Amino acid sequence: MIHPIPPGTRDVLPEEMAELRRLQSSLLGVFERFGFQEVRTPTIEYAEVLERGGGSGVEDAYRFFDDRGELLALRTDMTIPIARLVATRFGELEPPYRLSYLANAYRAVTPKRAELREFGQAGIELIGAAGADGTAEVVEVLGRTLDAVGLREARVGLGEADLWSCLLTDFGGDQALLAETTGLLARHDIVGIEAALAASELDRDRCESLLGMIQLRGGPQVIDQARGLGGSRFGECLDRLESTYHAIAARGGAERVRIDLGLMRELGYYSGTTIEVYDPSVGEIIGGGGRYDGLMRRFGADHAAAGFTLYLEPIHKAQIEQGLSGAGPPDA
Amino acid sequence: MIHPIPPGTRDVLPEEMAELRRLQSSLLGVFERFGFQEVRTPTIEYAEVLERGGGSGVEDAYRFFDDRGELLALRTDMTIPIARLVATRFGELEPPYRLSYLANAYRAVTPKRAELREFGQAGIELIGAAGADGTAEVVEVLGRTLDAVGLREARVGLGEADLWSCLLTDFGGDQALLAETTGLLARHDIVGIEAALAASELDRDRCESLLGMIQLRGGPQVIDQARGLGGSRFGECLDRLESTYHAIAARGGAERVRIDLGLMRELGYYSGTTIEVYDPSVGEIIGGGGRYDGLMRRFGADHAAAGFTLYLEPIHKAQIEQGLSGAGPPDA
Repeated sequence: MIHPIPPGTRDVLPEEMAELRRLQSSLLGVFERFGFQEVRTPTIEYAEVLERGGGSGVEDAYRFFDDRGELLALRTDMTIPIARLVATRFGELEPPYRLSYLANAYRAVTPKRAELREFGQAGIELIGAAGADGTAEVVEVLGRTLDAVGLREARVGLGEADLWSCLLTDFGGDQALLAETTGLLARHDIVGIEAALAASELDRDRCESLLGMIQLRGGPQVIDQARGLGGSRFGECLDRLESTYHAIAARGGAERVRIDLGLMRELGYYSGTTIEVYDPSVGEIIGGGGRYDGLMRRFGADHAAAGFTLYLEPIHKAQIEQGLSGAGPPDA
Repeated sequence: MIHPIPPGTRDVLPEEMAELRRLQSSLLGVFERFGFQEVRTPTIEYAEVLERGGGSGVEDAYRFFDDRGELLALRTDMTIPIARLVATRFGELEPPYRLSYLANAYRAVTPKRAELREFGQAGIELIGAAGADGTAEVVEVLGRTLDAVGLREARVGLGEADLWSCLLTDFGGDQALLAETTGLLARHDIVGIEAALAASELDRDRCESLLGMIQLRGGPQVIDQARGLGGSRFGECLDRLESTYHAIAARGGAERVRIDLGLMRELGYYSGTTIEVYDPSVGEIIGGGGRYDGLMRRFGADHAAAGFTLYLEPIHKAQIEQGLSGAGPPDA
């Protein structure tokens, strides 16, 4: 007899469950080796906390009232709850804090890049380490984590969230156009951006420069290709990206990194550098992250912060595609 | 700055989290050694599934509607979801099925015997193994699990859910009195039962017999002490308890077991034998279980079944009380 389960959720049978447990151990093992200690937060938060964190978090959340009439929400990621936790409980300790997590998160609507409404996330948060070197540490741990789970072909896209807004504003684009195109860019909808620009007041050359810029991807030379397109703030974004790239290279991690000037993350708390993880064997993003230097301040603790999240189900799918999961990760 | 979290939920900081991970590994390790394979089910189920499983499950659940207007619920335990899973996915396989789980469950109201609304559960389900020997296998794994996490003083209460209803009915108690007193017994409220009986039509000797019976606890001799109190169905319950006890003893597990003729579990799907786990170092129940031979049928698959659940937070508390948690479980 068939008893349905909600769309976007799944049952996991023993064979797959054993593989997922091995994957989880590998991930937590790497985080621990690099000094990131696991924390856990409640699955259920006050909706106000997710709202304070910003981004699409609370709109997409499963929400319901408790017995006292308070609006609760199932967490949509772990970064906002950890920001709350750090602001509430870590006041006495000297930063930086190196924290990790392995937990499920929930979205009430099917998100664009993942089919699941309940999904596993494993990641780290480096809180209190600013700038290029902080980001480079996060990218280094990310690279080692991908190695540990056997995804040696996985690549890390590295971008700057402000490149788009700087160049569009320099070219005279207004706030409405910026908001519209930023959303489209986060959804990788280049055709949509082209249409939005064509319908705007911007002249054709500038539209082409904008479209060209967000399609620049590759090694550090793409930064040079974008030089001179915009004003001084745009140039500062490129400088930041360049120094982040060099800090990553100094830690031996350049090989995995692809600079992507069109990279834009959907979540609303990112500032500056953003990262996205993909693997040639699966058609979806397998992780993401970046800097969110303003997030902690929303919870009353002013710390620069960066981190990454890996999505467990696509990672496991990539392992299966590469014949890795049965044998377990190579160095687990 | 303090940002509250919902009552009955908690943040777990690194030191405790590391201990909980060690505890989890020990538990899953024992389950695996005894051939119980881990499965996972969604945190969110259709409310109808919990309702079908019976008991207090759905009334106590966090419930909310999805985007299609379907009523969803956060699972209140893992036994009902696993019954659904087995009925839906295991039709082709020959029973018995030996399954395990380690997952969080949720209650929207604070339950009587645990303060948490989000709580960890680890347990096994033995599906398709009837009678005393099936129960004895479950109790054997339970004993080994308690050993593995270092709780050598923990005890397993063994009871029969039908003893109370048989004796009360034999003595002429009606359905209303039965329903009232069964709830009181599940909450260990002997004073309440005494009052309910005194207010009933039952004569005083019989009330005293009933009150005496539910306070019989100890070795197999308490079964003999209850002999002759009720009719033939009551006698059959005692026989079942006796043969279960002997089957446990034959597997070397008698030392941990305390027969408890007043044992009654709150959840509504138990049939016959019930178990409850307690430890002298903590004041709350640390686990429970028993037979639920009728549960699978509610999902269209007719299998006898038994299992146990250990509550992770009280188990961890008991480890701390005994100075075990820092060192990790002895044979982890």
